[in-house]
Amino acid sequence: MAALLLNADMGESFGPWIMGLDEQVMPYVDLANVACGFHASDPDTMRLTVRLSAKHGVTVGAHPAYPDLVGFGRRSLACSPTEIENLVLYQIGALAGICRGEGTRLGYVKPHGALYNDMIHDPDKLAAVMRAVVAFDPELPLMVMATRDPAPARELAQREGVTLWFEAFADRAYDGQGRLVSRREPGAVHHDPAVIVDQARRIALGQPLTASDGSELVLVADTLCVHGDNPESVAAVKAIRQALREVGASS
Amino acid sequence: MAALLLNADMGESFGPWIMGLDEQVMPYVDLANVACGFHASDPDTMRLTVRLSAKHGVTVGAHPAYPDLVGFGRRSLACSPTEIENLVLYQIGALAGICRGEGTRLGYVKPHGALYNDMIHDPDKLAAVMRAVVAFDPELPLMVMATRDPAPARELAQREGVTLWFEAFADRAYDGQGRLVSRREPGAVHHDPAVIVDQARRIALGQPLTASDGSELVLVADTLCVHGDNPESVAAVKAIRQALREVGASS
Amino acid sequence: MAALLLNADMGESFGPWIMGLDEQVMPYVDLANVACGFHASDPDTMRLTVRLSAKHGVTVGAHPAYPDLVGFGRRSLACSPTEIENLVLYQIGALAGICRGEGTRLGYVKPHGALYNDMIHDPDKLAAVMRAVVAFDPELPLMVMATRDPAPARELAQREGVTLWFEAFADRAYDGQGRLVSRREPGAVHHDPAVIVDQARRIALGQPLTASDGSELVLVADTLCVHGDNPESVAAVKAIRQALREVGASS
Amino acid sequence: MAALLLNADMGESFGPWIMGLDEQVMPYVDLANVACGFHASDPDTMRLTVRLSAKHGVTVGAHPAYPDLVGFGRRSLACSPTEIENLVLYQIGALAGICRGEGTRLGYVKPHGALYNDMIHDPDKLAAVMRAVVAFDPELPLMVMATRDPAPARELAQREGVTLWFEAFADRAYDGQGRLVSRREPGAVHHDPAVIVDQARRIALGQPLTASDGSELVLVADTLCVHGDNPESVAAVKAIRQALREVGASS
Repeated sequence: MAALLLNADMGESFGPWIMGLDEQVMPYVDLANVACGFHASDPDTMRLTVRLSAKHGVTVGAHPAYPDLVGFGRRSLACSPTEIENLVLYQIGALAGICRGEGTRLGYVKPHGALYNDMIHDPDKLAAVMRAVVAFDPELPLMVMATRDPAPARELAQREGVTLWFEAFADRAYDGQGRLVSRREPGAVHHDPAVIVDQARRIALGQPLTASDGSELVLVADTLCVHGDNPESVAAVKAIRQALREVGASS
Repeated sequence: MAALLLNADMGESFGPWIMGLDEQVMPYVDLANVACGFHASDPDTMRLTVRLSAKHGVTVGAHPAYPDLVGFGRRSLACSPTEIENLVLYQIGALAGICRGEGTRLGYVKPHGALYNDMIHDPDKLAAVMRAVVAFDPELPLMVMATRDPAPARELAQREGVTLWFEAFADRAYDGQGRLVSRREPGAVHHDPAVIVDQARRIALGQPLTASDGSELVLVADTLCVHGDNPESVAAVKAIRQALREVGASS
Repeated sequence: MAALLLNADMGESFGPWIMGLDEQVMPYVDLANVACGFHASDPDTMRLTVRLSAKHGVTVGAHPAYPDLVGFGRRSLACSPTEIENLVLYQIGALAGICRGEGTRLGYVKPHGALYNDMIHDPDKLAAVMRAVVAFDPELPLMVMATRDPAPARELAQREGVTLWFEAFADRAYDGQGRLVSRREPGAVHHDPAVIVDQARRIALGQPLTASDGSELVLVADTLCVHGDNPESVAAVKAIRQALREVGASS
Repeated sequence: MAALLLNADMGESFGPWIMGLDEQVMPYVDLANVACGFHASDPDTMRLTVRLSAKHGVTVGAHPAYPDLVGFGRRSLACSPTEIENLVLYQIGALAGICRGEGTRLGYVKPHGALYNDMIHDPDKLAAVMRAVVAFDPELPLMVMATRDPAPARELAQREGVTLWFEAFADRAYDGQGRLVSRREPGAVHHDPAVIVDQARRIALGQPLTASDGSELVLVADTLCVHGDNPESVAAVKAIRQALREVGASS
């Protein structure tokens, strides 16, 4: 069985402000989505985060975002595709530079927050991100959301020449299209650790989830998004890791 | 005779604000010092500037600076050596990423403004910049100011494993140590085109200049700093280019 | 006849970057919309702009925007109404502080760019701007776009306790609702000085314009937006000023 | 006996990043030094901090700084006096605007971090800050550090027409001139709560401290700087408050 890699946002501190329990969660993940200075992080924080990732053998990914520190990259900014292509390329390059300082290499790209959401809904923006990734390195995978029908994203990726990694969520409810239920809806976020671990295991095994419309939903995923924000989420990561190991889907 | 390369600051526009006559001066220089977003420029401006450089066969250099857009990187900021190392590495990487988007490569690094000045006076800051350059690519030359005695910079460079390119100025008066006379002093800046061209020719030929204390000053330089701010400076670049060709020091 | 005041964006330079012919256009306008540091300007530029305004007896207005220097505040940013209220209040206060340094007072508020557009289409955002204006000073007028039917804006303004100034454009075509024709449409912007001056005169006299759907459109306006970007637009301002004087609608 | 007011830095969160235990320490202080967006804080954080201050009857002071979020305003930036005057005036105005939103008024100004230190050592920078304060409101006190000899600061303040509030520290050692011992020296910071409370009591009563050179040092102070960074410092604030009440120097 293919491993289901665990990815988490890292390096989200900024200057004197600390965010996330990076040191505690790093030993349990495979992929670190490292902020690149536009929604969080700064050159020093990036350096320390890449060093921590390298120490634990965790692959470093670029986590580019709209330029919006105050809003943490969560507010959509009406950028043109060209602007998106260039700001993603800039951020990938910046983190790749920092990686060289630690003798390691960038392993993938996962857009952050509003940019991640906008590229789900706007193929022009998704294509812009793809062009940035391919321009930097055609071997670099781009992480996108696993949905019921991955064909449109796959076709676009093939046209642009980029490899996709599909990401799923263990702690979020899905709707019938295989999109995340909005956080404004009741039941959008799972809080029961048993439910979260069960959803992770199902995704790893290719077993169906139950979507919010009652339909069965099989998500084909390469990686699972986990969180290191607080002690509860770190505990969830450990539990997911253990469950994936038990079914042979994790190292 | 070795060529004396002409370098100029480029890509100093920012968002909607235009600065510099890049299109006019680019055909006459060898090296473009491209701003990296900390004192000027933005991902779109960087992309267009790299494209323009590539079109004219001009080598792209990173022009990293302190984070100070309002002050254009001209105000010293009390950063630690580690902070300098990381912010230089970040900016080099960012521009190198943009270069990949245009199918070209970064050719050298020249710090900007107050950072350039601070590293002249503080070996710890110079060493920090060197570590950033070497970490990114040990083959990448670092541009520093030619002075009367290049030995201290050369020794530090050898220890850090970085190649230096020495830069001289045709339009500035030098003091006895071979440092630039402060702009606050009378006679610090040459305005007479004939004087500027003569100083360029002397530097190219290894002939002595007359320092402000009356002593003879021979500067060993790889490159000459020129400007594309306004029509007068563009005219000066053309005249310098022509003069260097006549003495066989320019292509 | 009531005067039709001329307003223009001013103080849009930023750090070392110059924008706009403020010195040339200032003598011909009544109202200066001064950028407050979020899309353009900085404390020094604001101070000099307020000083220039005061010298010419021009009323200073705050020109608050989304925080987006690179995009010049022209890109919509998905802010909540509360975020809008607070960032407008911050910017009004900052400029009012600068005004005190020059012994003058803030005279009105006109949101900039994408924020101006967003409040046209979203009453919650318009109400948020109104709350900021009233919180700062209930006497301070808020400038909004004159459309065919000013009643909805007037009702909201009455509820929030804010005075409105309606603004019209002499160089833009209007659609049937009295909204500006998008710049992407042909004929959206008038370039013929005679057409611009005629439209200004009609607005001043309360005479109908011809909307893009052929209907007659009467705009009730307190002020006309003019521009000082380049010599052509400065010439247009002078011509408009002269025309308004001739019909008794300008001092 | 005059009250010795307690002041603490507040509103130092930024966007999604939380700093300081503002809610816990606010009930025990008299003066809240509220960050103005240049080294920390943002319009939303400022609004909430002013609201919290007003709820507890705490006077709001502006805490302006150099523009350096990443460095938290702790790194000196080589600004001219004019630049300092304008950036202080901008920040005072911005916070005063936010205060109007909460129906309260700004009560004083205390520069932050590197700006606070720079004005101690450079009378031109101190005078620039004074000009900003007076321009905004000649009634507004400016907080400066109490030293052995307050005469130079008083003379400058009298010339500029500004009222001074002198601030002392209970948790820092002083040198013979009455300046803070550098944090790089051993014994610069007191950690023993008994020592801190004793120093606070001595300052309140006008009793001498023992400076690092063994001399007696009497500091004439209007206010004492306290901290709400962590539970230990909040406990210290409560203990100081209690001690000051016992000697009749606190409400």
